[in-house]
Amino acid sequence: MTIMSKPLLNVTTPDKAIYLLKNHLNFETYKQKNRENISIKDALNRILSKNIQTLINLPGFNRSTMDGYAVKAEDSFGVSESLPSYLKVVGEIHMGCKPEFKIDMGEAAKISTGGMLPDGTNAVVMLEYVEQVDDKNIEIRKSVAPWENVVRKDEDLKAGEIILKKGHKLRPQDIGILAGIGKVNIEVYKKPKIAIISTGNEIIAAKDTPDFGQIRDINSYTLGACILEMQATPVYKGIVKDEKVLLEKKIKEVIEKKEADAIIISGGSSVGSRDVTLEVLDKLGKPGILVHGVSVKPGKPTIIAVVDNIPIFGLPGHPVSAMIIFNIFVRALSNWLQGSDWQLESDKQIEAEIDSNIASDSGREEYVRVLLYDKEGKYYAKPILGKSGLISNMVQASGLVKIGLNIEGVEKGSKVMVKLF
Amino acid sequence: MTIMSKPLLNVTTPDKAIYLLKNHLNFETYKQKNRENISIKDALNRILSKNIQTLINLPGFNRSTMDGYAVKAEDSFGVSESLPSYLKVVGEIHMGCKPEFKIDMGEAAKISTGGMLPDGTNAVVMLEYVEQVDDKNIEIRKSVAPWENVVRKDEDLKAGEIILKKGHKLRPQDIGILAGIGKVNIEVYKKPKIAIISTGNEIIAAKDTPDFGQIRDINSYTLGACILEMQATPVYKGIVKDEKVLLEKKIKEVIEKKEADAIIISGGSSVGSRDVTLEVLDKLGKPGILVHGVSVKPGKPTIIAVVDNIPIFGLPGHPVSAMIIFNIFVRALSNWLQGSDWQLESDKQIEAEIDSNIASDSGREEYVRVLLYDKEGKYYAKPILGKSGLISNMVQASGLVKIGLNIEGVEKGSKVMVKLF
Repeated sequence: MTIMSKPLLNVTTPDKAIYLLKNHLNFETYKQKNRENISIKDALNRILSKNIQTLINLPGFNRSTMDGYAVKAEDSFGVSESLPSYLKVVGEIHMGCKPEFKIDMGEAAKISTGGMLPDGTNAVVMLEYVEQVDDKNIEIRKSVAPWENVVRKDEDLKAGEIILKKGHKLRPQDIGILAGIGKVNIEVYKKPKIAIISTGNEIIAAKDTPDFGQIRDINSYTLGACILEMQATPVYKGIVKDEKVLLEKKIKEVIEKKEADAIIISGGSSVGSRDVTLEVLDKLGKPGILVHGVSVKPGKPTIIAVVDNIPIFGLPGHPVSAMIIFNIFVRALSNWLQGSDWQLESDKQIEAEIDSNIASDSGREEYVRVLLYDKEGKYYAKPILGKSGLISNMVQASGLVKIGLNIEGVEKGSKVMVKLF
Repeated sequence: MTIMSKPLLNVTTPDKAIYLLKNHLNFETYKQKNRENISIKDALNRILSKNIQTLINLPGFNRSTMDGYAVKAEDSFGVSESLPSYLKVVGEIHMGCKPEFKIDMGEAAKISTGGMLPDGTNAVVMLEYVEQVDDKNIEIRKSVAPWENVVRKDEDLKAGEIILKKGHKLRPQDIGILAGIGKVNIEVYKKPKIAIISTGNEIIAAKDTPDFGQIRDINSYTLGACILEMQATPVYKGIVKDEKVLLEKKIKEVIEKKEADAIIISGGSSVGSRDVTLEVLDKLGKPGILVHGVSVKPGKPTIIAVVDNIPIFGLPGHPVSAMIIFNIFVRALSNWLQGSDWQLESDKQIEAEIDSNIASDSGREEYVRVLLYDKEGKYYAKPILGKSGLISNMVQASGLVKIGLNIEGVEKGSKVMVKLF
């Protein structure tokens, strides 16, 4: 008689395994009951459970982007260095205040960057192009187009717009725009809780001293840290001996007491230990075991099951394999459970083709905001042009492209590295 | 008379600005007084303030990496499919236990993956190559070299070794190895605290309702989230009007009460507001202002100062510029303050040249651990070979290279993407 470990001939590819897992989980049920209200100060990397609509315009008033003089653009038409125009200064705008005066033809008011344009004006002439003639009069030496050097009252955000969508993972600029519209508390999905069970007769607690043949529990700690890294909460369930009744009791405890939204069993390294996990998962509930064995090295003896809408992962006992398999199968789960629309977050930098020319001055580093999109399996980066004072541009952007100090621009079709937010 | 904003003609390059900042800070003083003891469960991304030495070997006993029979390798020499050898089975090793028997020539003991080899044995024959003859005897059909299918008692870690160095930022596998040697509490540097002061007469608190000309405080929130992202703690100091005496009082409060290790002033957008910041920083203490204006777009009007060993950053008021400048100058600071040896962490993926051939079987995804190093400004990846059961390999590695399902290996000199831990 030959004693042989059960052969793992029908291994599943990683893509197929992920497909099976997603198809046997009902994310909607999870999302309905797992919502909470939090302060935006605590909201980094949390995922919105509702669309966010702005009820106000931003900035809410016509705002200067330069230090200079607020004017009627019409008063500057035709003006040049050799043909200046003269305007009467009727006042100065104080930062944070609504101007108490109105500007008529031939008049101007002194204004700082961020100041509110007075009624009657639609442009700002920069200080550099202004000569003060006397206390009350200035000479302007450059024409301005209507709304030049101005952010219009609804240019950053328009009242009624959806500014952030349900399922969006909040980045620093998203938290900024929420502050900008006065939403200091928001509803998000709860952080998923993931239970970790270590199995193996040879495993002892890290704080204990091993006898010969025993090994301290390493996987609870590496996996706990991996769970924290993916913005979820680890629930440490300790060590279970390789006995069906004990492992079954521990898993049932997590499911019945709703202690976690997913379970990781870090397997003992022996076939015997794996067989215990397989037998327990096989009879625990529907649909049960979906995957036994994956075409990944290291990490082949991986088990994936779903019981009562709870995903259960049987990871290999070796710490290296366990971490690699975690990164392939468990890492995405936190986002799925919360219905995140963002799939790219584990790679903070991505190569893309720039879809239009970008000009840049040599002698300075330039950071261009871009929107990333894919077409036929390839990433493209579209530059987002616009005033740097607009927070909404930063919210639309996926990341930044850096143009080095001594580079004069980037041609359409070039490869660029996009540093994702 | 021409009124002109102070021109920023002598802008500093980003590299020069970072050089100036580093040279005017005394990181040692900071590091000496900012240490604390924490549980390894809370230690992800924290930075070690002491070298960690292991006092024990890991695994601590000769451990099987396969299910099979522990034997004297010498008993298998010359053995093959057509020329099997016969051994007497004298016992079975139970997981987590020290075998109570010794193996002599011509004897074997049944063992599982992770089990302790009995005295007298130095190799394991895999189950696949064993035929059970009767209750007490087996036939082996393959020879094994000494220590084949075994992790020797000190192969993962040797007692006395430094396993992690002072200044190292802890990743999941590092936390795992600390658990493996029983170090459940460790000393780390405290998280830096970074104060945020918003300035500008037009800025109001996010919870308040703006009048015309007023804008809610966005930068405190975007910068607070950026600080959290870099594993530091934001200290929100609220909004200050553009008055020298008020800003000076606020900064002195932070310095004198030791509320933070660095200060960010998110400037009002006007030149007037920036001038207030400049004047205050100029007379606050030594060395004072180091940089005024950087060759970065957007973000030119940046101020960098050091006062009493506290770095102070005057960021532009525009939210977009403020975030970009934060990412260039403030992000690295958290690591410097704690003396981290790791500079790459903001880019989770990096291109490198593989420095030796890697074989891989088609039909499975393979993840190869690599050590990243640079030579003449170029990154190279060196594969770390070794048993996947060794946690120390994962600690030595900088990241993983994925070899796709249908690729049969990677040739020396090829470009690979290294996914950093």
